[in-house]
Amino acid sequence: MSEVVDGLVTVIPAGGVGSRLWPLSQPHRPKFLLDLLGTGATLIQDTVARVSPLSERVVIVTGERHAPAVASQVPEVPAANLVTEPSPRDSMAAIALAAALIEERWGSQVMASFAADHLIPDAEAFRATVREAARAAQGGKVVVIGIEPTEPSTAFGYIEMGEPIDGDARHVVAFTEKPDAETAAGMLARGGFAWNAGMFVMRTDVLLGHLDRLQPTLAAGAREIAAAWDGPSREEVLARVWPTLTKIAIDHAIAEPVAAEGGVAVVPASFEWHDVGDFDSLAELSEPTGGAVSIGREAAVATVGASAPLVVGGTKPVVVVGVDDAVVVESDEAILVTVRSAAQRVKDAAGALAEA
Amino acid sequence: MSEVVDGLVTVIPAGGVGSRLWPLSQPHRPKFLLDLLGTGATLIQDTVARVSPLSERVVIVTGERHAPAVASQVPEVPAANLVTEPSPRDSMAAIALAAALIEERWGSQVMASFAADHLIPDAEAFRATVREAARAAQGGKVVVIGIEPTEPSTAFGYIEMGEPIDGDARHVVAFTEKPDAETAAGMLARGGFAWNAGMFVMRTDVLLGHLDRLQPTLAAGAREIAAAWDGPSREEVLARVWPTLTKIAIDHAIAEPVAAEGGVAVVPASFEWHDVGDFDSLAELSEPTGGAVSIGREAAVATVGASAPLVVGGTKPVVVVGVDDAVVVESDEAILVTVRSAAQRVKDAAGALAEA
Repeated sequence: MSEVVDGLVTVIPAGGVGSRLWPLSQPHRPKFLLDLLGTGATLIQDTVARVSPLSERVVIVTGERHAPAVASQVPEVPAANLVTEPSPRDSMAAIALAAALIEERWGSQVMASFAADHLIPDAEAFRATVREAARAAQGGKVVVIGIEPTEPSTAFGYIEMGEPIDGDARHVVAFTEKPDAETAAGMLARGGFAWNAGMFVMRTDVLLGHLDRLQPTLAAGAREIAAAWDGPSREEVLARVWPTLTKIAIDHAIAEPVAAEGGVAVVPASFEWHDVGDFDSLAELSEPTGGAVSIGREAAVATVGASAPLVVGGTKPVVVVGVDDAVVVESDEAILVTVRSAAQRVKDAAGALAEA
Repeated sequence: MSEVVDGLVTVIPAGGVGSRLWPLSQPHRPKFLLDLLGTGATLIQDTVARVSPLSERVVIVTGERHAPAVASQVPEVPAANLVTEPSPRDSMAAIALAAALIEERWGSQVMASFAADHLIPDAEAFRATVREAARAAQGGKVVVIGIEPTEPSTAFGYIEMGEPIDGDARHVVAFTEKPDAETAAGMLARGGFAWNAGMFVMRTDVLLGHLDRLQPTLAAGAREIAAAWDGPSREEVLARVWPTLTKIAIDHAIAEPVAAEGGVAVVPASFEWHDVGDFDSLAELSEPTGGAVSIGREAAVATVGASAPLVVGGTKPVVVVGVDDAVVVESDEAILVTVRSAAQRVKDAAGALAEA
């Protein structure tokens, strides 16, 4: 059997600044355009490389501002498959437009949607799970890939898994928003929960059918834009209709209500997955040796009376004295000094600087 | 009365790297050559400017390596008064050579010795104290200027003050080495102690006379070098004799034994004095506003969940997130990240980097 899943179209919504990774990520240089781990590939390059063996067609939805950088970073994606949004209108609009465009161009297909800025070291395991999810999606379910939790994280939504359907797929009982620590610990103790990493696999006709019922304005708008996309009136229709599309996440628009109707399945996955949302997770991901972690820099890092720091970017030697778990990040624009325990607060750094 | 003290010669030993101020200070760029507070004047420039209204003659003793920089920074000091040491042999050798050279050139004079890298904001008050000390020195005492303690510091030696002599001068009972915290607190509670800032004022014949008795080899060596200094054999004599001079601090060679004999007087001074030995004291010195302290930089500094940091050097905006009392220092060579409470450990930073 060929590894490619016949007809599968991968949709990659490439949005989100990643503001907790400032000053690496900034509005003009969002996280997905970064080689965050210094591997030589940016996150979107890594994402495209991961899905390409699975699906012959890849569609990327991104902001107009970032389209040139995306086109330059992933030249293997045809320009026609680079869908640019005039403004951000949340994930449902992006995915609905992609689904409608797929139907216009190629008829109803199974589509798989994956964020552009997540990290999955074992691409083969990932693709095996997606193939399983695509099989389940053929039957008419909205399928979500559920990540096996490794800790009671409060950073992710959870999927409550029910009875088996067939193969690895199980019914989804419900989606849970990001829990507090106690709730998260309880879910891990009870078992049967998976992290929701926003990975959805479904037939375009199934998705758009649900959308016609649940978000009819959004569905109609997405279909209208898609119908005009490859013709002369794209700009006019886009300018007129896009700003009217309901701003809503796919979780609220589709996943939660359809799960309540019994229409969502989950394929549990045990592959390692990281959203690398902040410098604490970046440090954790990069620290197998226990020594200082240097990313994207050549110069030395040393410590005096301090545990191993994370140092990203910059060209000068860095010495950390007496600060445990330090994080020192230098971009072309600025220097951030923090500690891993404060990683969440980095999202306010750019604002603080603007006011300084 | 003219402000100048007739015949007074100021000697400025300019040595000491200031390793707790790394990476600003380094062996090739010691603390006294730095504009540490961003005032536009380096510490040695500030020192020369402070003593110039007092004494028509200023002699600087420094290492050969730093002589060009010193000559460039204080061109008002004649080249002939720049005494260069082939190697560091502690403070007594430097001051003894200066004293002997003064006698050779100008006969016995009152000399005043002040470190090149201390900070005294009120130069007028300083000069008034030196004038008082010079009067006391005329009578044959070794005179030390005692700084009124503002806290039970463990970073300085203390002077135990005894009975009044005349004017402001008092006998010195004894010198105490850097105390532990309990001893320091006890001395402050009892009163009658002053900090020893290494400021000595005395007649050259008195100093050399004590030295002849107490450190005869050093005295003879210093006199031999001084006699040859302004003639053709300077290099030969210096190369032969200098390495044989006893390595000892003036405190141990002169101040302590002469005090025990009753030959040292102290003139208490209430002017503000700082040795600015580390980034904690630099921050304290620079923080009247309570906001972030920026020295030698133009770019903005901001914080998120952190008290006001000290940021020195560098050209990029710096944001500190979740680290109180942070210190971020950028030189041409390196970046230091620490906190004020770890300021003492910075002395090990260069070594740690060399091993990294």
